[in-house]
Amino acid sequence: MFNCDYLEGAHPEILKRLSETNMVQTPGYGVDSYCDHARELIRKQVGDDKAYVQFLVGGTQTNMTVLAYLMRHHEGVIAADTGHIAVHETGSVEATGHKVLTIANSEGKITAKQVDDYVNAHNADEMKQHMVKPKVVFIGYATEEGTLYSKRELMDLYDVCKKHDLYLYVDGARMGYGLTSEKSDLTMKDIYDYSDVFYIGGTKVGALFGEAIVFKSTTPHDDFRYLMKQKGGLMAKGRLLGIQFETLFDGEGEDCLYYQISAHANRLAMKFKKRVKELGIELYQDSFTNQQFPIFTDELLEKLSKDYSFNYWCRVDDTHSAVRVCTSWATLEENVDRLLADIEKYM
Amino acid sequence: MFNCDYLEGAHPEILKRLSETNMVQTPGYGVDSYCDHARELIRKQVGDDKAYVQFLVGGTQTNMTVLAYLMRHHEGVIAADTGHIAVHETGSVEATGHKVLTIANSEGKITAKQVDDYVNAHNADEMKQHMVKPKVVFIGYATEEGTLYSKRELMDLYDVCKKHDLYLYVDGARMGYGLTSEKSDLTMKDIYDYSDVFYIGGTKVGALFGEAIVFKSTTPHDDFRYLMKQKGGLMAKGRLLGIQFETLFDGEGEDCLYYQISAHANRLAMKFKKRVKELGIELYQDSFTNQQFPIFTDELLEKLSKDYSFNYWCRVDDTHSAVRVCTSWATLEENVDRLLADIEKYM
Amino acid sequence: MFNCDYLEGAHPEILKRLSETNMVQTPGYGVDSYCDHARELIRKQVGDDKAYVQFLVGGTQTNMTVLAYLMRHHEGVIAADTGHIAVHETGSVEATGHKVLTIANSEGKITAKQVDDYVNAHNADEMKQHMVKPKVVFIGYATEEGTLYSKRELMDLYDVCKKHDLYLYVDGARMGYGLTSEKSDLTMKDIYDYSDVFYIGGTKVGALFGEAIVFKSTTPHDDFRYLMKQKGGLMAKGRLLGIQFETLFDGEGEDCLYYQISAHANRLAMKFKKRVKELGIELYQDSFTNQQFPIFTDELLEKLSKDYSFNYWCRVDDTHSAVRVCTSWATLEENVDRLLADIEKYM
Amino acid sequence: MFNCDYLEGAHPEILKRLSETNMVQTPGYGVDSYCDHARELIRKQVGDDKAYVQFLVGGTQTNMTVLAYLMRHHEGVIAADTGHIAVHETGSVEATGHKVLTIANSEGKITAKQVDDYVNAHNADEMKQHMVKPKVVFIGYATEEGTLYSKRELMDLYDVCKKHDLYLYVDGARMGYGLTSEKSDLTMKDIYDYSDVFYIGGTKVGALFGEAIVFKSTTPHDDFRYLMKQKGGLMAKGRLLGIQFETLFDGEGEDCLYYQISAHANRLAMKFKKRVKELGIELYQDSFTNQQFPIFTDELLEKLSKDYSFNYWCRVDDTHSAVRVCTSWATLEENVDRLLADIEKYM
Repeated sequence: MFNCDYLEGAHPEILKRLSETNMVQTPGYGVDSYCDHARELIRKQVGDDKAYVQFLVGGTQTNMTVLAYLMRHHEGVIAADTGHIAVHETGSVEATGHKVLTIANSEGKITAKQVDDYVNAHNADEMKQHMVKPKVVFIGYATEEGTLYSKRELMDLYDVCKKHDLYLYVDGARMGYGLTSEKSDLTMKDIYDYSDVFYIGGTKVGALFGEAIVFKSTTPHDDFRYLMKQKGGLMAKGRLLGIQFETLFDGEGEDCLYYQISAHANRLAMKFKKRVKELGIELYQDSFTNQQFPIFTDELLEKLSKDYSFNYWCRVDDTHSAVRVCTSWATLEENVDRLLADIEKYM
Repeated sequence: MFNCDYLEGAHPEILKRLSETNMVQTPGYGVDSYCDHARELIRKQVGDDKAYVQFLVGGTQTNMTVLAYLMRHHEGVIAADTGHIAVHETGSVEATGHKVLTIANSEGKITAKQVDDYVNAHNADEMKQHMVKPKVVFIGYATEEGTLYSKRELMDLYDVCKKHDLYLYVDGARMGYGLTSEKSDLTMKDIYDYSDVFYIGGTKVGALFGEAIVFKSTTPHDDFRYLMKQKGGLMAKGRLLGIQFETLFDGEGEDCLYYQISAHANRLAMKFKKRVKELGIELYQDSFTNQQFPIFTDELLEKLSKDYSFNYWCRVDDTHSAVRVCTSWATLEENVDRLLADIEKYM
Repeated sequence: MFNCDYLEGAHPEILKRLSETNMVQTPGYGVDSYCDHARELIRKQVGDDKAYVQFLVGGTQTNMTVLAYLMRHHEGVIAADTGHIAVHETGSVEATGHKVLTIANSEGKITAKQVDDYVNAHNADEMKQHMVKPKVVFIGYATEEGTLYSKRELMDLYDVCKKHDLYLYVDGARMGYGLTSEKSDLTMKDIYDYSDVFYIGGTKVGALFGEAIVFKSTTPHDDFRYLMKQKGGLMAKGRLLGIQFETLFDGEGEDCLYYQISAHANRLAMKFKKRVKELGIELYQDSFTNQQFPIFTDELLEKLSKDYSFNYWCRVDDTHSAVRVCTSWATLEENVDRLLADIEKYM
Repeated sequence: MFNCDYLEGAHPEILKRLSETNMVQTPGYGVDSYCDHARELIRKQVGDDKAYVQFLVGGTQTNMTVLAYLMRHHEGVIAADTGHIAVHETGSVEATGHKVLTIANSEGKITAKQVDDYVNAHNADEMKQHMVKPKVVFIGYATEEGTLYSKRELMDLYDVCKKHDLYLYVDGARMGYGLTSEKSDLTMKDIYDYSDVFYIGGTKVGALFGEAIVFKSTTPHDDFRYLMKQKGGLMAKGRLLGIQFETLFDGEGEDCLYYQISAHANRLAMKFKKRVKELGIELYQDSFTNQQFPIFTDELLEKLSKDYSFNYWCRVDDTHSAVRVCTSWATLEENVDRLLADIEKYM
């Protein structure tokens, strides 16, 4: 199976730590020493010992909780029309009362100029109070299409957000795969510096589950735990999140499990990409992260589907479809090799 | 620590199963074979192979998701004024737009008569459209105070709900402790038969986390998974929930881990209760489940607090407070004995 | 009919002004010169030419719009358990996501001490993030029971609100009847000075409809019009509200229509009250405003109901009920006299 | 001023009726005899004496109240990307928790085929529970661009809605201008027959304010008044709405004030359109109703703006902009003539 990056349980090191700590008694709701240690490790990653860190269980939950926290009732969040919150979260942001204001994506991304134009047009409209007021900009790193913002692009977005008193929020469900991509010129510290809030995805990067939310120290965050509880995300055994992120970020700089397993997945994805291109297969999106989007003929896809499963992405033309092929911390190189061999065989 | 029943990780059997299955690949979002097997086991427990079962991560999440699913915008949920949704979930039900309609509790419980009177009064009021329309009745089994509904009481509540076209929903965060109490005359099948939806708490009964929601086969449930996703509860690695409930309910009738560990906690709680009563200590609530509420003098509480931690419950008079003492699957008998000895010593 | 204070259309002076201005063209949405003039007149009433004034159509709409504006998602509003928002607005505040936190009323009122205790208890609770955070205090002037806060009581409430960083919001659906009561020691300026936001009820005090919302100049209000539009309250022909409030407040101090017609209603209500007391009839609430609550025997009520209609208030004992008798700008003295004569006759 | 169709008060006949009935006492909240009579007249218009009719004050309020009533939490409403609810109601639908699912408009309209494709794609998606479930289709008659659905188009939309178990809802803010357009092949009965709910706009068609909501007798509507109250729309003096709609629909078929004043506005709009086309001015949208969208050069617009005001619509190119010119029941022919003469003069 290559459908997604959450096919298996967790990296064995994480399970081991959960077992070792299992009978230790801790207070609930994320105020235990494991969580505190994980917070420290993450603060080191972002280079600010005042960064505010909390943990939630999943991505949709994180997005809706953070966004509801950042907005007042009449405010909305700008996102690419391919943004996860705009498409694949069953209207969870709207269910908290806020409109997702979509703008056209380019390879899954939006630009500072687009945001600037959007907000300028809003402010110039004499009927602006008849429209939702933009307050947050949502981007993914990596995006839902596996693409990456450059440091320049991120800085520009951040600047335009500051210019218009908007928050910049980065969905990092696949942040590990983004940061360790050969194409990335960003560190986690950069993301911290050039955004107001972001989250570090655990679910898709080796944890059983869990996302670490990082508020820049200057971003308001005082009552955030009220929202976590209200939105059903304040985990009783919060320690489980602390232990996992402790394990993922135990080390110096990029010398820790989180980056190692991300890099592994990226390496296999690049190997896959290189080879399918050699075989003359086109890619729907030029991704440099663990998600690859080869365009297969119907015939090839049918044959491969007997032994492999992928995530169907979209119809490209009458005889071709794009599928998503994901690698992860758990992907074995031999399985990628076997898949590549079979692609070649069936072509 | 005796604060609560979620101080440790999970029952070792659960961790073991999570480790054994860790590298198996499964599809996400709870449609895997572990979840299906767990569903089957739970259907056996309730005696209906058409019961509809889904899994969520925590109790607040479960309450708000189920309640939002059952209600339309102008409808509300009746609960005891001590009900968890009325007090300790940061207004999560209200955040989905629905009022919690509280009625006065008696030992944490409400009666069929109270519900009947409430709904009759609503319907008789010519201004009823100026008030929220009752649609669901929420009760806990066990309640937040550790008390239990009898079978007769449950049947009466169910009858009055059917009479008024209301849903009866049972919060079973501590269902194991309820069902295995010496005071209980209910089985899980009874709860299924005399309610419309209920959930079986895992978080407080041996799981790392997780609640199993059971819709009676005749209760509408078709689109429930949309709500699970919208409210942030559809776990990517849904298998984790399946594996845990599989482990808890592997067995026939009450001969499975869930009941065994619950009974263990109850036995220690009863031992504790018996002894403190002998010592002349009064109880704030006459609970027959794993939560006990001794009333300590300030002096005694201060001394005990050096070595033990409890959950502060409420001030009783100028020199006394009630605290909550919880046992769980993980509580060691020797620790209960030690606590009892120290209480005696410090009195 | 004596059911309520909105049985007729509007004071004739208002209809006259609406007719006179009917063909004048104005921009929509309350930015016309009539609204501006009405704002000026109201600013004079409160003695601050920086007060921020907007107009909405009805009371429930006003309450939910102002409250949603003042609160973030995890915040709630404290109100008496008899408060209109707690009982008779179909959960409109909850429908915007916010819990109404009720405290026990005394004659429809709550005290500064109650609020202080409530907030102190919240803040002292180590589980406070599991509960809704109090942010606004809601009171009525007059209350739903026709009673009045004294200046001292209002000042104390305001002080406790400032102490705890809460907003004090005054529902003035019947403010005219309150301010012109013989029992009142408040002016509109006092209400402005000792609250953060309040509204001046027009619907029940001579207008066809309409409520004027007054934000103290120091209370945040910048984006309030977004909320007005979102909640469906930004009237296309906003002028209609301006023209009505212009007519009601054209004059110096209390020498304007609003106070005159309120005083008229109060005078008749006092006449009614005095006489029924002389006749030995008890009052459910000792009201000094236009709402009176005589307790009638079933027999008397049945006889009176042939010729008069009242608002049924509540059952008092096996043979008595309280009803609400309202006077208004439109009540004729001869009708009150006739009712009193009939009460005497039927006793 | 030609900005919009709500520049003046109300048609004089309406003011007259409000004055005549002013001192009559009626019960509140729309259960009076004026409302009942207006309901009867509207039922005659739609040819079903079981049609369910209620009145609200404004359009945004009506849209959000009806839509919230028709949907459960996970459901959304399909609309053109130019739809009023998608753009100009400050996210009021989202504020009730529901996503507006936009599809590309063509002249302000959407097609049955587009809806069919959208819903088929949703249903075919194995991840459909990660997306909002379509439940209502929203269209305007006339649309926000002044264009009209043909009977065939409406019937096709209705068919596709029934096929997919969707409600078809028609925003009739400008229904009078639509039905009396020379281009219309629909009657109000047709709209009733080929939709599930619609509203008849009063605010923009001669009333002071007010919209009449018509549920097809077979569309669920039992609890709709709860929603009206909750959303702040249940007018205390509901009679005001009844009296206005009574006045507008007093007559047989199209022989009543509503159609007469609409036809007047359309006639002047057509006169305007014909003449500006003769003058070589292009129109942004080929509208056959009271809204016209001439494209003026900057120079012309500047000159005209000294004496006239319009609603700025959009920039067309570097030297041209489209503006909206509205006629209404109140527009004088001589003013249209003057405007046309000035356009000619300034060209």
